[in-house]
Amino acid sequence: MSGNSIGKLFTVTTFGESHGPALGAIVDGCPPGIELDTADLQKDLDRRKPGTSRYTTQRREADEVKILSGVFEGKTTGTSIGLVIENQDQRSKDYSKIKDRFRPMHADYSYQQKYGTRDYRGGGRSSARETAMRVAAGAIAKKFLAAQGISIRGCLTQLGPIAVENVDWSLVESNPFFCPDADCIPQMEEYMQKLRKDGDSIGAKLMVVASGMPPGLGEPVFDRLDADIAHALMGINAVKGVEIGAGFEAVTARGSEHRDELTPEGFTSNNAGGVLGGISSGQDLVAHLALKPTSSILIPGKTINMEGEPVDVITTGRHDPCVGIRAVPIAEAMVAIVLMDHWLRHRAQNAQVSSATPIIPGSD
Amino acid sequence: MSGNSIGKLFTVTTFGESHGPALGAIVDGCPPGIELDTADLQKDLDRRKPGTSRYTTQRREADEVKILSGVFEGKTTGTSIGLVIENQDQRSKDYSKIKDRFRPMHADYSYQQKYGTRDYRGGGRSSARETAMRVAAGAIAKKFLAAQGISIRGCLTQLGPIAVENVDWSLVESNPFFCPDADCIPQMEEYMQKLRKDGDSIGAKLMVVASGMPPGLGEPVFDRLDADIAHALMGINAVKGVEIGAGFEAVTARGSEHRDELTPEGFTSNNAGGVLGGISSGQDLVAHLALKPTSSILIPGKTINMEGEPVDVITTGRHDPCVGIRAVPIAEAMVAIVLMDHWLRHRAQNAQVSSATPIIPGSD
Amino acid sequence: MSGNSIGKLFTVTTFGESHGPALGAIVDGCPPGIELDTADLQKDLDRRKPGTSRYTTQRREADEVKILSGVFEGKTTGTSIGLVIENQDQRSKDYSKIKDRFRPMHADYSYQQKYGTRDYRGGGRSSARETAMRVAAGAIAKKFLAAQGISIRGCLTQLGPIAVENVDWSLVESNPFFCPDADCIPQMEEYMQKLRKDGDSIGAKLMVVASGMPPGLGEPVFDRLDADIAHALMGINAVKGVEIGAGFEAVTARGSEHRDELTPEGFTSNNAGGVLGGISSGQDLVAHLALKPTSSILIPGKTINMEGEPVDVITTGRHDPCVGIRAVPIAEAMVAIVLMDHWLRHRAQNAQVSSATPIIPGSD
Amino acid sequence: MSGNSIGKLFTVTTFGESHGPALGAIVDGCPPGIELDTADLQKDLDRRKPGTSRYTTQRREADEVKILSGVFEGKTTGTSIGLVIENQDQRSKDYSKIKDRFRPMHADYSYQQKYGTRDYRGGGRSSARETAMRVAAGAIAKKFLAAQGISIRGCLTQLGPIAVENVDWSLVESNPFFCPDADCIPQMEEYMQKLRKDGDSIGAKLMVVASGMPPGLGEPVFDRLDADIAHALMGINAVKGVEIGAGFEAVTARGSEHRDELTPEGFTSNNAGGVLGGISSGQDLVAHLALKPTSSILIPGKTINMEGEPVDVITTGRHDPCVGIRAVPIAEAMVAIVLMDHWLRHRAQNAQVSSATPIIPGSD
Repeated sequence: MSGNSIGKLFTVTTFGESHGPALGAIVDGCPPGIELDTADLQKDLDRRKPGTSRYTTQRREADEVKILSGVFEGKTTGTSIGLVIENQDQRSKDYSKIKDRFRPMHADYSYQQKYGTRDYRGGGRSSARETAMRVAAGAIAKKFLAAQGISIRGCLTQLGPIAVENVDWSLVESNPFFCPDADCIPQMEEYMQKLRKDGDSIGAKLMVVASGMPPGLGEPVFDRLDADIAHALMGINAVKGVEIGAGFEAVTARGSEHRDELTPEGFTSNNAGGVLGGISSGQDLVAHLALKPTSSILIPGKTINMEGEPVDVITTGRHDPCVGIRAVPIAEAMVAIVLMDHWLRHRAQNAQVSSATPIIPGSD
Repeated sequence: MSGNSIGKLFTVTTFGESHGPALGAIVDGCPPGIELDTADLQKDLDRRKPGTSRYTTQRREADEVKILSGVFEGKTTGTSIGLVIENQDQRSKDYSKIKDRFRPMHADYSYQQKYGTRDYRGGGRSSARETAMRVAAGAIAKKFLAAQGISIRGCLTQLGPIAVENVDWSLVESNPFFCPDADCIPQMEEYMQKLRKDGDSIGAKLMVVASGMPPGLGEPVFDRLDADIAHALMGINAVKGVEIGAGFEAVTARGSEHRDELTPEGFTSNNAGGVLGGISSGQDLVAHLALKPTSSILIPGKTINMEGEPVDVITTGRHDPCVGIRAVPIAEAMVAIVLMDHWLRHRAQNAQVSSATPIIPGSD
Repeated sequence: MSGNSIGKLFTVTTFGESHGPALGAIVDGCPPGIELDTADLQKDLDRRKPGTSRYTTQRREADEVKILSGVFEGKTTGTSIGLVIENQDQRSKDYSKIKDRFRPMHADYSYQQKYGTRDYRGGGRSSARETAMRVAAGAIAKKFLAAQGISIRGCLTQLGPIAVENVDWSLVESNPFFCPDADCIPQMEEYMQKLRKDGDSIGAKLMVVASGMPPGLGEPVFDRLDADIAHALMGINAVKGVEIGAGFEAVTARGSEHRDELTPEGFTSNNAGGVLGGISSGQDLVAHLALKPTSSILIPGKTINMEGEPVDVITTGRHDPCVGIRAVPIAEAMVAIVLMDHWLRHRAQNAQVSSATPIIPGSD
Repeated sequence: MSGNSIGKLFTVTTFGESHGPALGAIVDGCPPGIELDTADLQKDLDRRKPGTSRYTTQRREADEVKILSGVFEGKTTGTSIGLVIENQDQRSKDYSKIKDRFRPMHADYSYQQKYGTRDYRGGGRSSARETAMRVAAGAIAKKFLAAQGISIRGCLTQLGPIAVENVDWSLVESNPFFCPDADCIPQMEEYMQKLRKDGDSIGAKLMVVASGMPPGLGEPVFDRLDADIAHALMGINAVKGVEIGAGFEAVTARGSEHRDELTPEGFTSNNAGGVLGGISSGQDLVAHLALKPTSSILIPGKTINMEGEPVDVITTGRHDPCVGIRAVPIAEAMVAIVLMDHWLRHRAQNAQVSSATPIIPGSD
């Protein structure tokens, strides 16, 4: 019950279904005096928005956000910020065929089991459309963090079999895949065209990096920074794995090689991904996440209907063949929300967080 | 601030440092009427206890837990359960050498940055010794869940380069590695002896499986079951990666292959790891986690001291060469705590959780 | 920070300023399958609505609520319910005169101190207009509780010097004061007319009663039912005192007279107000609250301006001369929210709450 | 479920029954670097301790607290502080007579209804003995607040019919009633001797005042400072009413008289009790509370037994004839816990809280 909130001091609560009248959020705990405008939110909403390339769902949504409270004369007041986005391009009748059957690998079945009912139109609350409000809220956090010198960037590091080898951040915003490797972009275009023709879907891997991190964010022992990042990222639709720093590569590593040594000039490496003992070290925070292929595909599959009888299913609604692509701004937003929450928690304990002087420099 | 609690309805709060007088926990939200005895807790504490084989730290701790409240005439009363374990084998002077320098890849540095001070004896609060109370609290959750038909098992699936190929649960408790594959056990013995001789450490991979799962556990959209599992597992000392079901293998999977189809007899596969849209499906919950090699090794490394000057460091205290091994009961405990919390949350919404009739059977 | 939420399992989060574009709420944790319609919410909103009699503020607001999510085909889905009410009758220029000075006894001063800024138009977030969303959310709780046999009623028991002597619930909805005593109504009319002529304001006392209470609601030791009721009622604008049962009369009472004895037919009295040791006993829950006179009056007063200089102030905006009157549905709503939250918390522990069989009957 | 915690950033969680082996608490969120010693806690524990005068229960408890974690080299480390007090003078057999019957006006009945069981020895968790840990935790908050210039004092303002007229704080600690009025002390002595002879009990009224308050503490709209104070005080055993400032006197007050005007020299009065719109104004925080007479008295009363049959009951265990007396340090502790929590929450938003410059001075 009541699982639609995240964050302890900077708290984001959301509502809204894929085919309902609107999506919304309440962003609570934003300090006063921050310049805030819908344009600050729209930038990231537009990056997440459907229908911007042939590689995403063709649903057309302007995703125009309205700020209903918490901002006065262009600045935050310290009170709760109400946000709303109206849905515009619902085609609910597309879903009448799947009203009585469960898409395999979809929340259809578990929602029906949990609630004894479900809004089958576009997945209702389980739709990735819900993540628009995360991006809007995350944009507020990004703006706050930027003023503290912290910046958050995300990119696609693998699309199915195509793995990125070089990360050039300057490329990320200029291609429809958020891909940081020039060599991979044409391969991805080709792969996605073939995939769409097949009516199939594919998984992806993303990376999010926060730079300019102060040391000291994270609260032992349960509210560790890495634990909260894992919570926030695993809670994004379709995510099945999360790594911090070296992640699963640590399994085969020896301590003598794996450790990030300290020198007066800084750390010699960043296998830790910027977190030691659950607390930020001042190095870049580095997280990776794995997204499964969407279950909404055109290739018929076996399933059951509401009576438990075997039936076939095809999903003809509009869907992303690779949900990982549009997840880049979502993952950035979730990291921003967690970092802002921990930044405030740390300041509660130590007023000097913003001007903390690390013993050694962070990695950027 | 105040990060030492986990769980919303079943809430575990802990205290205690590696070299302080005692460790303790308050377990809040346990329903009344459950038979509970220290023996129920001691079983798992003994599995985690140091010094039981040559492959773990040689610190000697009985880890005898006392129940100070919440149990009356052999049964829980519904009020908060106070637990305490006294520390016995502190050798704090072992740590005087590292008092003024930071072990690389250790919480030494980040704690000092966060708090401006730290209990350097054995890592203080950042020590894995803290996890004893998690295991004690988790044992209460395990007992509750067992009465609902849910059982939780963990094992080691990889130790450095040695990866398990077959999972035979009957082997797990009879070898010092919690290894489920008979072929791997002698290899692991040999590897660990060599490692200890080298004074080095190694990473590991674990798996935890919950069987007998009811459908419906997990709360969209932020308190998803998989998100809370990720939070709980990433919050264990040394964990750097968490996967649910297929995890990072989903990156290269096509939707048409990856989806778990539904039939009247059950699901045809379990790539989802038992969670759809953040809600349990009734299949086995399957999670994997990666643990880094401990940073406390005998091989000298570069670091800095409290003044930021370059120095060398060797850790001569007693440490586990592979912290992943003893993490098996800890990971089980964390999964149990999350599941009990969500079980109760689900019952708040739907009194019938324990007798829910899935449309199709789960996987066991 | 982030103080705009109430409730643990049934959680209400609100936003909105007096003169902003809209007010809103997210109601999280409502079980699925409950028939819900805007009409269910509108009834109580209309009771709280301004401008319905000459004894309240003359601001005209339809207070029409929209349900933006969480309801599908006429029933709740179990997901978060988004609510919004658009503001219609802002006259912000009324407030330009007090932009640079603090109304005595008003949140103007404390908001300015806390945030370094404030939305001075109508008090912004500190306006009682904010309580409209509490009433809307409370109406959902009332509907849920009614299905469990619990009903909540409130009335005015004192308006300045005029104290109610007899409580006839049938009168409450048919007079503009929510007054349950026929003799008092004409006195109150006369008093209020005189008061309005004087440009002054007056305090009031209210009573809220919940009948059909199951025993067992409330969680020792901090989340007691009475403590949470006190929290919810003291958090209403202008409330300065809260009593449970006999309240301050208990100060002069002897234990031998004050105790509510138990008989097979029920309790012999209800000095406890339905709560023993923080847990409901099954008797009626009875709470009283004191509301101060509003500070927004036409009689000039001394204050300071933003520069700390002495100035006079008169409030010419539209205000209630007795805020206690319209607080009746607000107080009911707050009690309903707390009771629903505790009802769900209790069911988490004991699935049988709704059919609990008390050892002796409650008082109605 | 899980109601044994209070506070969001400064969080106190307690355990322990009247006749169990020990009481304990975990104090989480205390900033590092604060000098802390058991003596700091013992001072207030001794003020609350039973058996210090003939006017309290004759149970003998040393109430010696041990600090088990969170303090290193005499200072807090920022990690969770574990506290424990061993029970010494249990006489559980005193309670065998009431094992099967409910004391009227006691938690016996509601605990039995809620949990289906209860620890009948001395009331188990419902015993006021539980409050020892609140006092210990509150002493930590008091020490922190004192360093910020905030001091908290409490006194008895009415004992049954004897109401205090003058408050002379210098008297409070030198008489067994915490009474601040020299004229009342002999009357109270006489009254209590008579009461004890009668085997009866009596109610009381207390006042708590916090001086040196910074403006800005409290979070609209639900986590208001006054709402959280009401929650904390109403949650003390036997409390039935809470007032802030003028409290119930506000009911008959006119706005023109009641308002606290502002002048460059400060406020002209303090009817608000230091809170405007839920946020501290910088004036003294003033709260009053009413405590009922204890239900454990020697005068026989009517009740029922576990089978619902009518029986008589006499309580022969050791009890306070006026629980209000020893509640003074408890009420101070609860106010301290709430203030420290809000102080930290406010600092999270505004690093300058400790050096905030009010526009006008507070009242001391």
